[in-house]
Amino acid sequence: MNACVLYSGGKDSSLMAVILQRLGYEVELVTVNFDAFPSWKAAEESALNLGFKHHVLKADKTILEDAVDTILKDGFPNNGINQIHKHALEIASQKYKVVADGTRRDDRIPKLNINEIQSFEDRNNVQYLTLAGFGHKTVNNLSKNLFAVKKELTNMENNSDYEIEIRYMIGEIEGEETSLNIFPEHVQSRVIGWEENE
Amino acid sequence: MNACVLYSGGKDSSLMAVILQRLGYEVELVTVNFDAFPSWKAAEESALNLGFKHHVLKADKTILEDAVDTILKDGFPNNGINQIHKHALEIASQKYKVVADGTRRDDRIPKLNINEIQSFEDRNNVQYLTLAGFGHKTVNNLSKNLFAVKKELTNMENNSDYEIEIRYMIGEIEGEETSLNIFPEHVQSRVIGWEENE
Repeated sequence: MNACVLYSGGKDSSLMAVILQRLGYEVELVTVNFDAFPSWKAAEESALNLGFKHHVLKADKTILEDAVDTILKDGFPNNGINQIHKHALEIASQKYKVVADGTRRDDRIPKLNINEIQSFEDRNNVQYLTLAGFGHKTVNNLSKNLFAVKKELTNMENNSDYEIEIRYMIGEIEGEETSLNIFPEHVQSRVIGWEENE
Repeated sequence: MNACVLYSGGKDSSLMAVILQRLGYEVELVTVNFDAFPSWKAAEESALNLGFKHHVLKADKTILEDAVDTILKDGFPNNGINQIHKHALEIASQKYKVVADGTRRDDRIPKLNINEIQSFEDRNNVQYLTLAGFGHKTVNNLSKNLFAVKKELTNMENNSDYEIEIRYMIGEIEGEETSLNIFPEHVQSRVIGWEENE
Protein backbone atom coordinates (compact mmCIF):
# COMPACT_ATOMS: atom_id res chain seq x y z
CA MET A 1 0.00 0.00 0.00
CA ASN A 2 1.13 3.53 -0.83
CA ALA A 3 1.73 6.02 1.95
CA CYS A 4 2.99 9.57 1.76
CA VAL A 5 4.94 11.39 4.44
CA LEU A 6 4.99 15.18 4.46
CA TYR A 7 8.74 15.60 4.38
CA SER A 8 11.16 18.31 5.43
CA GLY A 9 14.45 16.41 5.58
CA GLY A 10 14.44 16.59 9.39
CA LYS A 11 14.75 13.74 11.88
CA ASP A 12 11.05 13.45 12.69
CA SER A 13 9.66 13.07 9.20
CA SER A 14 12.60 10.83 8.25
CA LEU A 15 11.85 8.51 11.18
CA MET A 16 8.17 8.39 10.24
CA ALA A 17 9.17 7.39 6.71
CA VAL A 18 11.40 4.58 7.99
CA ILE A 19 8.73 3.22 10.32
CA LEU A 20 6.16 3.06 7.53
CA GLN A 21 8.60 1.52 5.08
CA ARG A 22 9.58 -1.17 7.59
CA LEU A 23 5.90 -1.94 8.15
CA GLY A 24 5.56 -2.69 4.45
CA TYR A 25 4.16 0.55 2.98
CA GLU A 26 5.50 1.87 -0.31
CA VAL A 27 6.53 5.24 1.02
CA GLU A 28 6.67 8.42 -1.04
CA LEU A 29 8.05 11.57 0.54
CA VAL A 30 6.21 14.73 -0.33
CA THR A 31 7.14 18.37 0.15
CA VAL A 32 4.37 20.88 -0.47
CA ASN A 33 5.44 24.09 -2.17
CA PHE A 34 3.47 27.33 -2.47
CA ASP A 35 5.25 28.71 -5.52
CA ALA A 36 7.05 31.48 -3.68
CA PHE A 37 10.51 29.97 -3.25
CA PRO A 38 11.99 26.54 -4.28
CA SER A 39 12.31 25.39 -0.67
CA TRP A 40 11.95 21.68 -1.39
CA LYS A 41 15.54 21.17 -2.51
CA ALA A 42 17.06 20.26 0.87
CA ALA A 43 14.22 17.78 1.54
CA GLU A 44 14.62 16.26 -1.90
CA GLU A 45 18.33 15.72 -1.30
CA SER A 46 17.68 14.06 2.08
CA ALA A 47 14.95 11.86 0.60
CA LEU A 48 17.09 10.67 -2.29
CA ASN A 49 20.08 10.04 0.00
CA LEU A 50 17.83 7.73 2.04
CA GLY A 51 16.62 6.00 -1.12
CA PHE A 52 13.04 7.25 -1.00
CA LYS A 53 10.94 8.63 -3.85
CA HIS A 54 10.36 12.37 -3.46
CA HIS A 55 7.64 14.52 -4.98
CA VAL A 56 6.90 18.23 -4.82
CA LEU A 57 3.19 18.98 -4.59
CA LYS A 58 2.39 22.48 -5.77
CA ALA A 59 -0.17 24.43 -3.79
CA ASP A 60 -1.94 27.72 -4.29
CA LYS A 61 0.16 30.76 -3.35
CA THR A 62 -2.86 32.36 -1.66
CA ILE A 63 -2.57 29.74 1.13
CA LEU A 64 0.90 31.04 1.91
CA GLU A 65 -0.28 34.64 1.63
CA ASP A 66 -3.09 34.02 4.12
CA ALA A 67 -0.67 32.39 6.54
CA VAL A 68 1.75 35.28 6.24
CA ASP A 69 -1.15 37.65 6.99
CA THR A 70 -1.90 35.68 10.15
CA ILE A 71 1.76 35.68 11.20
CA LEU A 72 2.24 39.43 10.64
CA LYS A 73 -0.93 40.13 12.60
CA ASP A 74 0.08 37.74 15.44
CA GLY A 75 3.76 38.69 15.53
CA PHE A 76 4.66 35.01 15.97
CA PRO A 77 4.54 32.10 13.54
CA ASN A 78 2.60 29.31 15.28
CA ASN A 79 -0.92 29.87 13.99
CA GLY A 80 0.21 30.63 10.47
CA ILE A 81 2.33 27.49 10.33
CA ASN A 82 -0.59 25.40 11.56
CA GLN A 83 -2.77 26.93 8.84
CA ILE A 84 -0.26 25.92 6.18
CA HIS A 85 0.17 22.44 7.59
CA LYS A 86 -3.54 21.75 7.46
CA HIS A 87 -3.67 22.81 3.81
CA ALA A 88 -0.62 20.65 3.06
CA LEU A 89 -2.39 17.63 4.55
CA GLU A 90 -5.51 18.31 2.50
CA ILE A 91 -3.44 18.57 -0.67
CA ALA A 92 -1.63 15.31 0.07
CA SER A 93 -4.96 13.59 0.77
CA GLN A 94 -6.05 14.26 -2.80
CA LYS A 95 -3.32 11.89 -4.04
CA TYR A 96 -2.78 9.45 -1.16
CA LYS A 97 -5.03 7.32 1.03
CA VAL A 98 -2.44 7.12 3.83
CA VAL A 99 -1.00 10.48 4.81
CA ALA A 100 1.63 10.82 7.53
CA ASP A 101 3.81 13.49 9.04
CA GLY A 102 6.56 13.64 11.67
CA THR A 103 4.71 15.46 14.46
CA ARG A 104 5.88 14.11 17.81
CA ARG A 105 4.09 13.81 21.15
CA ASP A 106 5.82 16.94 22.46
CA ASP A 107 5.46 19.12 19.36
CA ARG A 108 3.31 22.17 19.83
CA ILE A 109 3.15 23.09 16.14
CA PRO A 110 2.29 22.05 13.61
CA LYS A 111 -0.28 19.88 15.30
CA LEU A 112 -3.88 18.82 14.73
CA ASN A 113 -6.07 18.18 17.74
CA ILE A 114 -8.09 14.97 17.99
CA ASN A 115 -11.24 16.53 16.49
CA GLU A 116 -9.32 17.99 13.57
CA ILE A 117 -7.72 14.60 12.94
CA GLN A 118 -11.10 12.86 12.96
CA SER A 119 -12.54 15.43 10.60
CA PHE A 120 -9.54 15.27 8.27
CA GLU A 121 -9.76 11.47 8.04
CA ASP A 122 -13.53 11.35 7.58
CA ARG A 123 -13.86 14.15 5.02
CA ASN A 124 -11.11 12.78 2.83
CA ASN A 125 -11.49 9.07 3.51
CA VAL A 126 -7.81 8.82 4.44
CA GLN A 127 -5.77 7.43 7.28
CA TYR A 128 -3.61 10.00 9.05
CA LEU A 129 -0.48 8.84 10.89
CA THR A 130 1.92 10.78 13.09
CA LEU A 131 4.79 10.24 15.53
CA ALA A 132 2.52 11.20 18.46
CA GLY A 133 3.48 8.02 20.32
CA PHE A 134 7.12 9.13 20.51
CA GLY A 135 8.77 11.91 22.53
CA HIS A 136 11.80 13.94 21.48
CA LYS A 137 14.25 11.83 23.50
CA THR A 138 13.23 8.66 21.71
CA VAL A 139 13.27 10.34 18.30
CA ASN A 140 16.77 11.69 18.99
CA ASN A 141 18.08 8.30 20.10
CA LEU A 142 16.59 6.48 17.14
CA SER A 143 17.76 9.15 14.74
CA LYS A 144 21.33 8.83 16.04
CA ASN A 145 21.27 5.11 15.29
CA LEU A 146 19.55 5.38 11.92
CA PHE A 147 20.71 8.55 10.23
CA ALA A 148 23.73 10.64 9.37
CA VAL A 149 22.69 14.08 10.58
CA LYS A 150 24.20 17.49 9.87
CA LYS A 151 23.85 20.29 12.41
CA GLU A 152 24.08 23.79 10.99
CA LEU A 153 22.51 27.24 11.09
CA THR A 154 19.28 27.28 9.11
CA ASN A 155 19.47 29.27 5.90
CA MET A 156 17.31 29.61 2.79
CA GLU A 157 19.09 26.75 0.99
CA ASN A 158 19.50 24.02 3.61
CA ASN A 159 15.96 23.76 5.04
CA SER A 160 12.58 22.73 3.66
CA ASP A 161 10.30 23.62 6.56
CA TYR A 162 7.25 25.80 5.90
CA GLU A 163 9.31 28.50 7.58
CA ILE A 164 11.43 29.06 4.48
CA GLU A 165 8.70 30.20 2.10
CA ILE A 166 7.12 32.22 4.92
CA ARG A 167 10.45 33.93 5.60
CA TYR A 168 10.88 34.60 1.92
CA MET A 169 7.47 36.19 1.58
CA ILE A 170 7.77 38.24 4.78
CA GLY A 171 11.17 39.42 3.55
CA GLU A 172 9.57 40.55 0.27
CA ILE A 173 6.74 42.41 2.01
CA GLU A 174 8.31 43.76 5.19
CA GLY A 175 12.05 43.35 4.68
CA GLU A 176 14.70 41.04 6.10
CA GLU A 177 14.56 42.48 9.62
CA THR A 178 10.90 41.67 10.30
CA SER A 179 11.54 38.18 8.96
CA LEU A 180 14.46 37.67 11.36
CA ASN A 181 12.42 39.01 14.30
CA ILE A 182 9.74 36.42 13.69
CA PHE A 183 12.14 33.60 12.85
CA PRO A 184 15.38 34.14 14.79
CA GLU A 185 18.48 32.28 13.56
CA HIS A 186 18.65 28.76 14.93
CA VAL A 187 20.59 25.53 14.57
CA GLN A 188 18.83 22.72 12.75
CA SER A 189 19.48 19.01 12.32
CA ARG A 190 19.16 17.77 8.78
CA VAL A 191 19.24 14.13 7.73
CA ILE A 192 21.87 13.70 5.00
CA GLY A 193 21.80 9.90 4.67
CA TRP A 194 21.87 6.62 6.56
CA GLU A 195 24.12 6.02 9.51
CA GLU A 196 27.00 3.72 8.52
CA ASN A 197 25.64 0.52 10.04
CA GLU A 198 22.13 0.87 8.60
CA MET B 1 18.93 -1.17 23.15
CA ASN B 2 16.37 -3.08 25.21
CA ALA B 3 12.72 -2.11 25.11
CA CYS B 4 9.75 -3.71 26.79
CA VAL B 5 6.20 -3.69 25.51
CA LEU B 6 3.33 -4.30 27.93
CA TYR B 7 1.78 -7.20 26.10
CA SER B 8 -1.67 -8.74 25.95
CA GLY B 9 -1.48 -10.80 22.76
CA GLY B 10 -3.77 -8.33 20.98
CA LYS B 11 -3.18 -6.52 17.70
CA ASP B 12 -2.16 -3.20 19.23
CA SER B 13 0.61 -4.37 21.53
CA SER B 14 1.79 -6.83 18.86
CA LEU B 15 2.11 -4.01 16.32
CA MET B 16 4.00 -1.86 18.81
CA ALA B 17 6.42 -4.74 19.36
CA VAL B 18 7.00 -5.15 15.63
CA ILE B 19 7.61 -1.45 15.10
CA LEU B 20 10.21 -1.31 17.87
CA GLN B 21 11.92 -4.48 16.70
CA ARG B 22 12.14 -3.19 13.14
CA LEU B 23 13.67 0.05 14.45
CA GLY B 24 16.47 -1.99 16.03
CA TYR B 25 15.37 -2.41 19.65
CA GLU B 26 15.80 -5.75 21.40
CA VAL B 27 12.17 -6.16 22.32
CA GLU B 28 10.94 -8.10 25.34
CA LEU B 29 7.22 -8.59 25.81
CA VAL B 30 5.98 -8.25 29.35
CA THR B 31 2.68 -9.19 30.94
CA VAL B 32 2.11 -7.91 34.45
CA ASN B 33 0.31 -10.32 36.77
CA PHE B 34 -1.25 -9.56 40.13
CA ASP B 35 -1.16 -13.06 41.55
CA ALA B 36 -4.89 -13.62 41.39
CA PHE B 37 -5.19 -15.69 38.20
CA PRO B 38 -2.57 -16.93 35.66
CA SER B 39 -3.88 -14.66 32.93
CA TRP B 40 -0.57 -14.28 31.08
CA LYS B 41 -0.79 -17.60 29.26
CA ALA B 42 -2.55 -16.40 26.13
CA ALA B 43 -0.12 -13.48 25.81
CA GLU B 44 2.85 -15.78 26.31
CA GLU B 45 1.62 -18.06 23.56
CA SER B 46 1.15 -15.14 21.15
CA ALA B 47 4.58 -13.72 22.02
CA LEU B 48 6.39 -17.02 21.48
CA ASN B 49 4.51 -17.65 18.22
CA LEU B 50 5.84 -14.30 16.98
CA GLY B 51 9.36 -15.18 18.13
CA PHE B 52 9.59 -12.62 20.94
CA LYS B 53 10.90 -13.14 24.45
CA HIS B 54 8.10 -13.03 27.02
CA HIS B 55 8.29 -12.32 30.74
CA VAL B 56 5.70 -12.23 33.48
CA LEU B 57 6.28 -9.43 35.97
CA LYS B 58 4.62 -10.15 39.29
CA ALA B 59 2.93 -7.25 41.01
CA ASP B 60 1.36 -6.77 44.42
CA LYS B 61 -2.16 -8.18 44.69
CA THR B 62 -3.27 -5.08 46.61
CA ILE B 63 -3.02 -3.07 43.37
CA LEU B 64 -5.63 -5.35 41.82
CA GLU B 65 -7.77 -5.21 44.97
CA ASP B 66 -7.72 -1.40 44.94
CA ALA B 67 -8.72 -1.37 41.28
CA VAL B 68 -11.56 -3.81 41.92
CA ASP B 69 -12.73 -1.53 44.73
CA THR B 70 -12.82 1.39 42.30
CA ILE B 71 -14.68 -0.64 39.69
CA LEU B 72 -17.31 -1.94 42.09
CA LYS B 73 -17.86 1.59 43.38
CA ASP B 74 -18.05 3.05 39.83
CA GLY B 75 -20.09 0.22 38.32
CA PHE B 76 -17.90 0.41 35.18
CA PRO B 77 -14.30 -0.66 34.58
CA ASN B 78 -12.54 2.36 33.02
CA ASN B 79 -11.01 4.05 36.06
CA GLY B 80 -9.95 0.80 37.66
CA ILE B 81 -8.27 -0.38 34.47
CA ASN B 82 -6.42 2.91 34.18
CA GLN B 83 -5.25 2.52 37.78
CA ILE B 84 -3.85 -0.93 37.04
CA HIS B 85 -2.21 0.20 33.82
CA LYS B 86 -0.32 2.99 35.57
CA HIS B 87 1.00 0.54 38.15
CA ALA B 88 2.00 -1.88 35.40
CA LEU B 89 4.00 0.88 33.70
CA GLU B 90 5.76 1.76 36.97
CA ILE B 91 6.64 -1.88 37.53
CA ALA B 92 8.04 -2.25 34.01
CA SER B 93 10.06 0.95 34.44
CA GLN B 94 11.99 -0.67 37.29
CA LYS B 95 13.51 -3.14 34.81
CA TYR B 96 13.51 -1.31 31.48
CA LYS B 97 14.62 2.13 30.27
CA VAL B 98 12.28 2.05 27.27
CA VAL B 99 8.71 1.10 28.14
CA ALA B 100 6.01 0.87 25.49
CA ASP B 101 2.40 -0.18 25.20
CA GLY B 102 -0.15 -0.53 22.43
CA THR B 103 -2.47 2.36 23.26
CA ARG B 104 -3.78 3.89 20.04
CA ARG B 105 -4.85 7.43 19.20
CA ASP B 106 -8.53 6.52 19.59
CA ASP B 107 -8.24 4.43 22.74
CA ARG B 108 -10.06 5.88 25.72
CA ILE B 109 -8.60 3.47 28.25
CA PRO B 110 -6.06 2.61 29.35
CA LYS B 111 -4.52 5.96 28.54
CA LEU B 112 -2.16 8.42 30.21
CA ASN B 113 -2.64 12.11 29.54
CA ILE B 114 0.29 14.27 28.49
CA ASN B 115 1.06 15.39 32.07
CA GLU B 116 0.98 11.84 33.37
CA ILE B 117 3.32 10.77 30.58
CA GLN B 118 5.77 13.56 31.37
CA SER B 119 5.71 12.70 35.06
CA PHE B 120 6.13 8.99 34.39
CA GLU B 121 9.16 9.57 32.16
CA ASP B 122 10.81 12.09 34.48
CA ARG B 123 10.29 10.25 37.76
CA ASN B 124 11.62 6.98 36.41
CA ASN B 125 14.11 8.28 33.86
CA VAL B 126 12.51 6.17 31.14
CA GLN B 127 11.22 6.72 27.65
CA TYR B 128 7.55 5.88 27.18
CA LEU B 129 6.28 4.95 23.73
CA THR B 130 2.77 4.27 22.51
CA LEU B 131 0.77 3.81 19.30
CA ALA B 132 -0.84 7.24 19.75
CA GLY B 133 0.13 8.24 16.21
CA PHE B 134 -2.06 5.49 14.73
CA GLY B 135 -5.84 5.14 14.60
CA HIS B 136 -7.79 1.89 14.68
CA LYS B 137 -8.24 1.71 10.93
CA THR B 138 -4.50 1.78 10.35
CA VAL B 139 -3.81 -0.72 13.12
CA ASN B 140 -6.41 -3.09 11.66
CA ASN B 141 -4.98 -2.82 8.15
CA LEU B 142 -1.41 -3.36 9.31
CA SER B 143 -2.44 -6.21 11.56
CA LYS B 144 -4.17 -7.95 8.67
CA ASN B 145 -0.95 -7.83 6.67
CA LEU B 146 1.37 -8.79 9.52
CA PHE B 147 -0.44 -11.24 11.75
CA ALA B 148 -2.55 -14.37 11.81
CA VAL B 149 -5.45 -13.33 14.02
CA LYS B 150 -8.09 -15.44 15.73
CA LYS B 151 -11.52 -13.95 16.46
CA GLU B 152 -13.40 -15.57 19.31
CA LEU B 153 -15.48 -14.86 22.38
CA THR B 154 -13.28 -13.76 25.26
CA ASN B 155 -12.99 -16.29 28.05
CA MET B 156 -10.72 -16.75 31.06
CA GLU B 157 -8.19 -18.82 29.09
CA ASN B 158 -7.77 -17.00 25.78
CA ASN B 159 -7.18 -13.40 26.91
CA SER B 160 -4.44 -11.63 28.89
CA ASP B 161 -5.98 -8.18 29.32
CA TYR B 162 -6.19 -6.67 32.80
CA GLU B 163 -9.87 -7.53 32.51
CA ILE B 164 -9.24 -11.21 33.23
CA GLU B 165 -7.81 -10.90 36.72
CA ILE B 166 -10.36 -8.20 37.51
CA ARG B 167 -13.18 -10.49 36.38
CA TYR B 168 -11.74 -13.32 38.41
CA MET B 169 -11.56 -11.23 41.56
CA ILE B 170 -15.01 -9.69 41.12
CA GLY B 171 -16.36 -13.20 40.56
CA GLU B 172 -14.79 -14.30 43.84
CA ILE B 173 -16.19 -11.35 45.78
CA GLU B 174 -19.55 -10.66 44.16
CA GLY B 175 -20.25 -13.71 42.03
CA GLU B 176 -20.25 -14.41 38.30
CA GLU B 177 -23.29 -12.23 37.55
CA THR B 178 -21.79 -8.96 38.77
CA SER B 179 -18.66 -9.76 36.83
CA LEU B 180 -20.66 -10.29 33.62
CA ASN B 181 -22.61 -7.07 34.18
CA ILE B 182 -19.43 -5.07 34.33
CA PHE B 183 -17.65 -6.97 31.54
CA PRO B 184 -20.29 -8.20 29.07
CA GLU B 185 -19.27 -11.01 26.72
CA HIS B 186 -17.47 -9.72 23.64
CA VAL B 187 -15.52 -10.91 20.63
CA GLN B 188 -11.78 -10.36 20.74
CA SER B 189 -9.00 -10.55 18.18
CA ARG B 190 -5.95 -12.43 19.35
CA VAL B 191 -2.68 -12.62 17.46
CA ILE B 192 -1.71 -16.28 17.05
CA GLY B 193 1.33 -15.88 14.78
CA TRP B 194 2.69 -14.19 11.67
CA GLU B 195 0.69 -13.84 8.51
CA GLU B 196 1.97 -16.29 5.89
CA ASN B 197 3.95 -13.80 3.84
CA GLU B 198 5.71 -12.15 6.75
